Amino acid sequence: MEYDVIIIGAGPCGVTSAIYCDRAGLKTLVLEKLFVGGQIVNTYEVENYPALGMILGVDLVSKFESHLKSFEDIDFKREEVISINALGELKEVNTKKNTYKSKAIIFATGSTPRYLGVPGEERLKGMGVSYCGTCDGAMFRKQDVLVVGGGNTAVEDAIFLSRLCNKVYVVHRRDTFRADKKMVDNMLKIPNIEFHYDSVVEEICGENSTDSIIIKNINTNEKLKINVNCIFIAIGQIPNNNLIKDFVKIDDGGYAITDDHMKTNVDGFFVAGDGRAGVLKQIITAASDGAIAAFSASKYIAKL
Amino acid sequence: MEYDVIIIGAGPCGVTSAIYCDRAGLKTLVLEKLFVGGQIVNTYEVENYPALGMILGVDLVSKFESHLKSFEDIDFKREEVISINALGELKEVNTKKNTYKSKAIIFATGSTPRYLGVPGEERLKGMGVSYCGTCDGAMFRKQDVLVVGGGNTAVEDAIFLSRLCNKVYVVHRRDTFRADKKMVDNMLKIPNIEFHYDSVVEEICGENSTDSIIIKNINTNEKLKINVNCIFIAIGQIPNNNLIKDFVKIDDGGYAITDDHMKTNVDGFFVAGDGRAGVLKQIITAASDGAIAAFSASKYIAKL
Repeated sequence: MEYDVIIIGAGPCGVTSAIYCDRAGLKTLVLEKLFVGGQIVNTYEVENYPALGMILGVDLVSKFESHLKSFEDIDFKREEVISINALGELKEVNTKKNTYKSKAIIFATGSTPRYLGVPGEERLKGMGVSYCGTCDGAMFRKQDVLVVGGGNTAVEDAIFLSRLCNKVYVVHRRDTFRADKKMVDNMLKIPNIEFHYDSVVEEICGENSTDSIIIKNINTNEKLKINVNCIFIAIGQIPNNNLIKDFVKIDDGGYAITDDHMKTNVDGFFVAGDGRAGVLKQIITAASDGAIAAFSASKYIAKL
Repeated sequence: MEYDVIIIGAGPCGVTSAIYCDRAGLKTLVLEKLFVGGQIVNTYEVENYPALGMILGVDLVSKFESHLKSFEDIDFKREEVISINALGELKEVNTKKNTYKSKAIIFATGSTPRYLGVPGEERLKGMGVSYCGTCDGAMFRKQDVLVVGGGNTAVEDAIFLSRLCNKVYVVHRRDTFRADKKMVDNMLKIPNIEFHYDSVVEEICGENSTDSIIIKNINTNEKLKINVNCIFIAIGQIPNNNLIKDFVKIDDGGYAITDDHMKTNVDGFFVAGDGRAGVLKQIITAASDGAIAAFSASKYIAKL
């Protein structure tokens, strides 16, 4: 089966790409290995998708899904992509079952947060276990929270949260931060941040939502229970770029390098959303990336 | 009154900026001379704001407005800005009534389409009079439409619409197009486009929606009535950048030049949305710009 565009991934970026491709008159296939919605699936409430106010993650997912399905001409298949041949003019996408061909590909598989892998994390995800300070910080205004990590994102999150929250605990397994020095210096001056160095998280506790974190000092093996309403796990994101890393230029963090048209180094192959090296990773930015990628794919196909 | 951030303009970009600023713990003022919603106000139906399906423009506006107003700490004032002093660390915004001060400014006044100024245009706006092919083209699938203009946008719109619509009439007041040659060559080959050179639109006709356009040949003065369901007026956009053109770098089209953080040449002064030189002008891209500008302003204020 031959398409104008194949979109891989059906998070906010892939869904928006599909809407824009279809509305541009392109024959469009969306391939998704799991469900529509991407990382929204792991979010309890979303308050910053503009025009929707406060909405449950599951409800926002179903709105994205309905919008996608309202376009009858978009083919949607739940198939996992196992390889891509993107270098020719007619590109090939292989799933476990089939081979699909298209003139252009929009790759929108996003990224996956790096998990701590401790007891309570999976169970309390979205209920006081967050992987994004910018997304969820405002839900914990004037409460106590904990940030894990030592890189730029962790330090940015700690500073960001210090303005919103009553108290911020920063737990880092080393005694120095690898984030930019200027940022670290700023953070160290903030009075409502308390630092726990050489420490790791042992367990996330709470019945239906997080109420405390058990940390352990790796030098003394001493344990400490800290009462907080949310843990922000900022130990990195893993861009889901394994399928493309052999032919698309990737930066040190594993993100695909694109221009602001979502073009990569490969003609007709676009990467959009959380998997590309962009400024901010939010539902709204991923959706916008998807619209731009569709616009670029449409121009590419029309040879403009 | 002193704020962290003043946002000028309350279209999708300004509203999203405000939501993100407030959620980042910034004291935020939004100044708008007219209404919330920006160019959505002129749109009858919107089908490409992801997650909302097909929605009336007025309903989408009221959703943006409710979302904004749900944040009690955001100050919203209907005041027209008459001058800005952005060069110092503490910036000043003067309205007809007041002077407001802030650490950062997000300028989100968007752009205004250039109007034809012919009978029927104002009355049928949003009802078969459109200023954006990408936005509204899909509403006229398999119908006949007309494009006015001779620049890149007009030619892009004509090609875009030729794939969706039954027939596309292109009306241009000269006998050659000033758009890029390659694009023009592509357009001239498309069989369902009919060209009317040296012609201007005299009137847009229709009771409750557009049903025909009267054009006039400027050499012969001959008039012709063409039956179409929509006229796409693609004679340019005017970025609303008069207030900033003396201190922000502006491109030849009048758009503010920013990086992908929405930073301009002036520290702490961000431009986002339709008024900046970006790839695509859509509700979703304007909203995304707003989120990024807020994120950048928040980092700027925290001196990160």
